[in-house]
Amino acid sequence: MANGLQNWVLMVTAQTPTNIAVIKYWGKRDETLILPVNDSISVTLDPEHLCTTTTVAVSPSFENDRMWLNGKEISLSGGRFQNCLREIRCRANSVDDEDKGIHIKKEDWDRLHVHIASYNNFPTAAGLASSAAGFACLVFSLAKLMNLKEDQGALSAIARQGSGSACRSLYGGFVKWVMGNDDNGSDSIAVQLANEAHWDDLVIIIAVVSSQQKETSSTTGMRESVETSALLHHRAQEVVPKRILQMEEAIRTHDFPSFARLTCADSNQFHAVCLDTCPPIFYMNDTSHRIISYVEKWNRSAGTPQVAYTFDAGPNAVLIARNREVASLMLQRLLFYFPPPPATELTSYVLGDKSILKDAGLEMRKDVEALSPPPETKDNIPSQKYAGDVSYFICTRPGRGPVLLADESQALLHPETGLPK
Amino acid sequence: MANGLQNWVLMVTAQTPTNIAVIKYWGKRDETLILPVNDSISVTLDPEHLCTTTTVAVSPSFENDRMWLNGKEISLSGGRFQNCLREIRCRANSVDDEDKGIHIKKEDWDRLHVHIASYNNFPTAAGLASSAAGFACLVFSLAKLMNLKEDQGALSAIARQGSGSACRSLYGGFVKWVMGNDDNGSDSIAVQLANEAHWDDLVIIIAVVSSQQKETSSTTGMRESVETSALLHHRAQEVVPKRILQMEEAIRTHDFPSFARLTCADSNQFHAVCLDTCPPIFYMNDTSHRIISYVEKWNRSAGTPQVAYTFDAGPNAVLIARNREVASLMLQRLLFYFPPPPATELTSYVLGDKSILKDAGLEMRKDVEALSPPPETKDNIPSQKYAGDVSYFICTRPGRGPVLLADESQALLHPETGLPK
Repeated sequence: MANGLQNWVLMVTAQTPTNIAVIKYWGKRDETLILPVNDSISVTLDPEHLCTTTTVAVSPSFENDRMWLNGKEISLSGGRFQNCLREIRCRANSVDDEDKGIHIKKEDWDRLHVHIASYNNFPTAAGLASSAAGFACLVFSLAKLMNLKEDQGALSAIARQGSGSACRSLYGGFVKWVMGNDDNGSDSIAVQLANEAHWDDLVIIIAVVSSQQKETSSTTGMRESVETSALLHHRAQEVVPKRILQMEEAIRTHDFPSFARLTCADSNQFHAVCLDTCPPIFYMNDTSHRIISYVEKWNRSAGTPQVAYTFDAGPNAVLIARNREVASLMLQRLLFYFPPPPATELTSYVLGDKSILKDAGLEMRKDVEALSPPPETKDNIPSQKYAGDVSYFICTRPGRGPVLLADESQALLHPETGLPK
Repeated sequence: MANGLQNWVLMVTAQTPTNIAVIKYWGKRDETLILPVNDSISVTLDPEHLCTTTTVAVSPSFENDRMWLNGKEISLSGGRFQNCLREIRCRANSVDDEDKGIHIKKEDWDRLHVHIASYNNFPTAAGLASSAAGFACLVFSLAKLMNLKEDQGALSAIARQGSGSACRSLYGGFVKWVMGNDDNGSDSIAVQLANEAHWDDLVIIIAVVSSQQKETSSTTGMRESVETSALLHHRAQEVVPKRILQMEEAIRTHDFPSFARLTCADSNQFHAVCLDTCPPIFYMNDTSHRIISYVEKWNRSAGTPQVAYTFDAGPNAVLIARNREVASLMLQRLLFYFPPPPATELTSYVLGDKSILKDAGLEMRKDVEALSPPPETKDNIPSQKYAGDVSYFICTRPGRGPVLLADESQALLHPETGLPK
């Protein structure tokens, strides 16, 4: 191994997107392998605005596997990390880096330790699928480091064992997680339905909703739903299979009305199953409900859906607008109802693709204050405003899958020590 | 008719309770006859705290059918009023009141008009099943006035055509509304499972929750659920029939743990079906969710259910405590989290059976302020309080069915003019 030198460090840095499910994953048929009770479909979000960057490094000088998340060391002892590491190690191949004079034989990987540093470009605790992007990035970057020959589908099956929805972050655009049939999970993989260029009209606005509630983790919630909801099995067996076919067709044909109706209905049904769980699980709060009501009212008044909404295991709204023009109208509505709190500048309240703000004619706080009530609200009912109920908005779009970052300056680990920079 | 005198007025006054469903009615198979998609079971609430009083009068001097609700004249032209009036009139019999010298022949009823005055001893708009008590009282009192020979079951089938859940208010105690099979609805009637004395340990506390939301009417909501929810039919056909049998058994055997589990699960499933409706219907708000969380946490910490919760088509919580001791502990918890707003006296914040307040050691505002956090809350999390989120509480219990009020001083119509007093 490595010419007897013990001080080399070999590194790979990758960037992986988050994703938002439009047909939801809720319920496992196998808790350890993370095998779902139904197929799901997601849209990958542009990593420019929401992504995880991970650097993985190997060196004979490393004494243990170690990991840092957003600069803080975290334990790798959890079963899900261990499952991913084991599955990748057993598929590792020899690596020869002539430039650096590094030669790792297949069998060396069992004795070598890795360092992992991961960074989210968005708040980890905000309920924005950080574990999906995180495990996808971990698996993707380790697979590159260890020279795996497996295709993205096989890698998605490994990422799935870290966090179910992570498998869908191995591709850009529109992705289906096929539930599969095998007991060993080998056919429970993600497949790309269409890449991000296929339907590039879509614009996505995320409302990060303020919440004091302690939320039920999705792992716990799912288990309790499978054990106690009388509706979950009916959903998984009778409802979702039809919706999957309809959603695939809607995406294939750019049929926004069908896409929106299915997205909203499936989000609502997922939350209905949570409510049907014992004890019941509430992820949406009054602010989430208000956002749904505004969108429903607008869609009805427009005669055809303009915006789809979907909510994961938390109160944040993910709003998918049919195009940029609709997105700027949506942003006007959102800022009318949820203006920035007094001391907050607009530019730190609307994050991501700020060009939507400009399209909406909103460059300063006074532009927000001058907004009229949306035309679909009845004039005789004064519109109540809810400053403070949304923490911030993120404007984004469907985006690409994982990429390697070749520029070593973007690495999160020091190229000589293998420790966080 | 009536010896040629035209100035007599014949009156009947009755009092009818509200009821709260513990296995919910949600969805009609026939909109006009109001035939449900599943059986339901309710507890009748003590009319001392929540009831409708109705006086019906007939006189040859009346020129039209007229009705006053809480002193204000309302239209009787609605189909539901007309259906009830028609069904009762066609079953009317002759009446002979020798004392007053009044003789009405069966066929006279078609030409005679009625005056109806109705009064709720609780706020009509608070979402406390006022239409159930109202239609039950209308039908019960008219049936007495017009000397119907039909039994309570047959009367319940008439009240059902006014408001579905009204049929269950024709009995006290524990009542089942049998969905029936006939297309004409003749077998869709209420039956009494047990009277109010059967399980008189139970104590009921209603939290009337403040809300700014305009709620979807239950008529509209039900129709939209039947048309769009993929889960409603599964609930009606597969889930509810089993729960009905289990609930009947729990009531028969005073099995509070089963009663509570079924009550909570069925309330949550009803709201899950509302959420699965397109557009989704939200009846519960953050306050409702908080009350559920407090009860669930307490029940879990106690090891066995102490309190059941159920919510109708609105945010109000109906809490059923296993006995008076638990009810006073419940009231302590509720007042700890939802203390009366600054200017509100305790006696106008806790209504109904105020003896529960005394049992709980809460006689003045300062007693509420001195309450400690419930032992099941973790000490390291400061308990947030939500003054203003509950409008008031009503303490009550299972109660009796409709009764006639013989004392004419309790009539709502003037005995000579037949107009509201």
